[in-house]
Amino acid sequence: MINFETSPAEYRHWKLKIDGAAATLAMDVNEDEALGEGYKLKLNSYDLGVDIELADAVERLRFEHPEVKVVVITSLKPRIFCAGANIYMLGASSHGRKVNFCKFTNETRCAIEDDSRHSGRSYVAALNGSASGGGYELALACDEIYLVDDGNAAVSLPETPLLGVLPGTGGLTRLVDKRKVRRDRADVFSTLAEGLRGKRAKEWGLIDDCFPTTGFEDAIAARVGELMAAGAGRKAGPGVKLNPLRVEATNDARAYSYVSLLLNREKRVADLTVRGPAGDSPADPTEIQKLGDAYWPLQAYRELDDALLHLRINEPEIGLVCLRAEGEIENVLSVDRALADNRDHWLAREIRLLMARVLRRLDLTAKSFFTIIEPGSCFAGNLLELALAADRSYMLNDPQRRVVIATGAMNGGALPMSNGLTRLESRFLAHPERVDDVLRHAVAFDAEAADEAGLITFAPDILDWDDEIRVAIEERAALSPDALTGMEASLRFAGPETTETKIFGRLTAWQNWIFQRPNAVGEQGALTNYGKPSKPKFDFKRT
Amino acid sequence: MINFETSPAEYRHWKLKIDGAAATLAMDVNEDEALGEGYKLKLNSYDLGVDIELADAVERLRFEHPEVKVVVITSLKPRIFCAGANIYMLGASSHGRKVNFCKFTNETRCAIEDDSRHSGRSYVAALNGSASGGGYELALACDEIYLVDDGNAAVSLPETPLLGVLPGTGGLTRLVDKRKVRRDRADVFSTLAEGLRGKRAKEWGLIDDCFPTTGFEDAIAARVGELMAAGAGRKAGPGVKLNPLRVEATNDARAYSYVSLLLNREKRVADLTVRGPAGDSPADPTEIQKLGDAYWPLQAYRELDDALLHLRINEPEIGLVCLRAEGEIENVLSVDRALADNRDHWLAREIRLLMARVLRRLDLTAKSFFTIIEPGSCFAGNLLELALAADRSYMLNDPQRRVVIATGAMNGGALPMSNGLTRLESRFLAHPERVDDVLRHAVAFDAEAADEAGLITFAPDILDWDDEIRVAIEERAALSPDALTGMEASLRFAGPETTETKIFGRLTAWQNWIFQRPNAVGEQGALTNYGKPSKPKFDFKRT
Repeated sequence: MINFETSPAEYRHWKLKIDGAAATLAMDVNEDEALGEGYKLKLNSYDLGVDIELADAVERLRFEHPEVKVVVITSLKPRIFCAGANIYMLGASSHGRKVNFCKFTNETRCAIEDDSRHSGRSYVAALNGSASGGGYELALACDEIYLVDDGNAAVSLPETPLLGVLPGTGGLTRLVDKRKVRRDRADVFSTLAEGLRGKRAKEWGLIDDCFPTTGFEDAIAARVGELMAAGAGRKAGPGVKLNPLRVEATNDARAYSYVSLLLNREKRVADLTVRGPAGDSPADPTEIQKLGDAYWPLQAYRELDDALLHLRINEPEIGLVCLRAEGEIENVLSVDRALADNRDHWLAREIRLLMARVLRRLDLTAKSFFTIIEPGSCFAGNLLELALAADRSYMLNDPQRRVVIATGAMNGGALPMSNGLTRLESRFLAHPERVDDVLRHAVAFDAEAADEAGLITFAPDILDWDDEIRVAIEERAALSPDALTGMEASLRFAGPETTETKIFGRLTAWQNWIFQRPNAVGEQGALTNYGKPSKPKFDFKRT
Repeated sequence: MINFETSPAEYRHWKLKIDGAAATLAMDVNEDEALGEGYKLKLNSYDLGVDIELADAVERLRFEHPEVKVVVITSLKPRIFCAGANIYMLGASSHGRKVNFCKFTNETRCAIEDDSRHSGRSYVAALNGSASGGGYELALACDEIYLVDDGNAAVSLPETPLLGVLPGTGGLTRLVDKRKVRRDRADVFSTLAEGLRGKRAKEWGLIDDCFPTTGFEDAIAARVGELMAAGAGRKAGPGVKLNPLRVEATNDARAYSYVSLLLNREKRVADLTVRGPAGDSPADPTEIQKLGDAYWPLQAYRELDDALLHLRINEPEIGLVCLRAEGEIENVLSVDRALADNRDHWLAREIRLLMARVLRRLDLTAKSFFTIIEPGSCFAGNLLELALAADRSYMLNDPQRRVVIATGAMNGGALPMSNGLTRLESRFLAHPERVDDVLRHAVAFDAEAADEAGLITFAPDILDWDDEIRVAIEERAALSPDALTGMEASLRFAGPETTETKIFGRLTAWQNWIFQRPNAVGEQGALTNYGKPSKPKFDFKRT
């Protein structure tokens, strides 16, 4: 079982150093501490274990070190920044593991960009040596890329020429869409195993600048100084400690404080329940700050995030997740109001951004989600987003036991999907005026009003309820898991596309295809043959 | 070898009837006239042969019957509109054949939408019986969908529940992006093998209306009358006959009048040469109309289209296509001026739209393209788009034999890519101001100027020329064909996304993945098992 929780004291592969408003996140992969068997993490190559630490460091910078304005990502290995994902690890991984590994590393890189875009922290990739494949893709996720000019250091994406696969962490998309490298140059670069060095890399826009070895550290320090000066107006802090999550795990359940996960492996179904806050939440940022990581939205969404990651990686056969919410609607809405009223306070902002990332993690999870809205539930405000994120929702329509859902201050734009729209906007593409209608709706929606407003899929009455849900669950769990993944990826993100949807939709789908092709993973495929004396043999039919 | 040329007199599966400003395109698939062996085209199911006729009919409507304002797509089979792609054909096809079949059918549906959007012709799907899978997807490509309400007829996308694959002709994308069906309803509908009938289909936005059997024909006729009245102002005609292309085919070459294709199968490389017009072209629309299908751009692009389709389907092992252009730059530019000056004339518009579609066919071809710009070439105006569409370009830099390229009236917006941008806009995403600079550039660009302006990738001198190109070709042809397909699909379409790029990028990539998965095509996969007494067995791991 893979554990996604860690902390700087436990890092094996990264060193996080805070120096006032600047932080250095230095990669120093311990080659003997791989997560799996049978490969060594040479040359700062990485596996999921390395990336879990990186994700943790970025998250902690945001909550524990809000005073940090610039993060330098560099390496402690001489003459090598990072060799990318470990190829032997990839070659030995099952298809599902490869795909899930790429998805997590992509989310981590998107989280870096999310920090930069929304929290104004600058990320500087200080490439003190060669950055190949995933190493260069990590740099591409940063705001600025500087490469040492030592006559040897290069940036490269050798996946296509050497391994017969794609750079799997957004590299192709970020080349042309983020850095806007000319597509013919991107084509040349992406087929050039040795990559490009200093001057040409700069001319083509692959890096921002290069500096000779002797002046490299000074040049980076000077640039960091400039960025810190530019960010001097940003006020944040003091930080909030992210303590380890408390979870009681048994064979078929995980119980956190506000989240619980119940697995029915035989039926391939899980129940994922979020409990709302127990009482009123503080409205004042000082009080919120005092609560720290015990503040409901921070704790509940950290738990939800962990549960989603657990489901993805450790429970591949669970195909359908039933989302439930328990608690008082008013308590959830009071959290939303507090976060909205304090939207300019750094901690409220960071909590909101975390919630948005967790909900996007749900959108991007290759499992079906049904929301079950029953008496005692609290699908309101931020938790209503769970219902809107689900592939469909069932709400009990029983005059005897009235169930309601409600919109709140967080449904209007605070928690955007990867496509840049809110979940309400995505839902009402055909009737954009309905978004405001439901946001302005002063009272909660009972089942009939929710059905009328288009907020739920079905509203069975009590006579049909049990059967309808049982049959829907059984039918869903019986369908082809692959067709469902492709179908859900196609239906969940209507409307505009962003770099993020391109990475998780288009690029990921192509990579998944290639990861399945004999030319990559067959006996004589390029990925299988990497590092062996034999050369790969291709079926040259173009498809 | 599959032949993409046909004409109404040769149709085996469709009846095209013209009645003044209305046309009826009726599907009446001859089950014994399948393109391949071992399956019958029952219930108006289709294979590539059926779709080649549909594509031909849509093209001929545009050129030969410009007076037609409304096209009704219906079926001559009682109680069945169309059962979609033939499943036994899919089950028996190689991976490459399945993928190429889907790509062509998708292009045909996009051509219907292109006709509707840009030429103002209305397409009405008159579903006189059930439309399942590809049958409903064909309806989705039309402007309006009407379903008979006979207690039985339904629209459905049974691919996921019955076959473990995706609807492969844009259905999922058009559901949520074109018809803006709510995503949870789209989820329910796409997992419901039997689909939905009349009233509910209408309520969910899957169809525009339904009419009882007795009133169905009258209701369609009434709607056609309204659409004809609305389109009464549109002036076009008389039509231009599309005569059969003349092509001399040998084992390793195809020679058309303006296009030639030379295959080197051992090296997996083809030369595709377009010859410019022989002399001055007419500037006057009456003269153009007189030339008809012998007018250079119409003939040359029809030939180019045929050559591209031939390369895709009949020459799967050709991985790299070297694009060449021969002729006088001034002759090409004079065609561009004529088309631009007469942009409101129906024939000039149709020719321009055809050119745009052919160039998009090239953009969407899963082969690498290098443009080779040598003395005697004429990469100017519309033919410059070939160089801009290529993955990279090589231009000889030789002061002794000056080679030039030039922009013209057609590079500014007349020939958009699938993403809605021009190829110049896509190229200069990082420097949008350069688009106007090169468009306004009064003189032709020699190699150094072209290099400076960013219009070409490399400008080797005469000493390096042969070696550099030889090595580049050899290296390209040696790479993994699958990785190249995914890489090119990712690099060619930076910037915005459209329904079309979503279909050819995201949806296609997911479908290709699923078409490769054991759950669909393995011995116990759902596609393999279709129609057999045995049930499919799934590996239920979600990926």
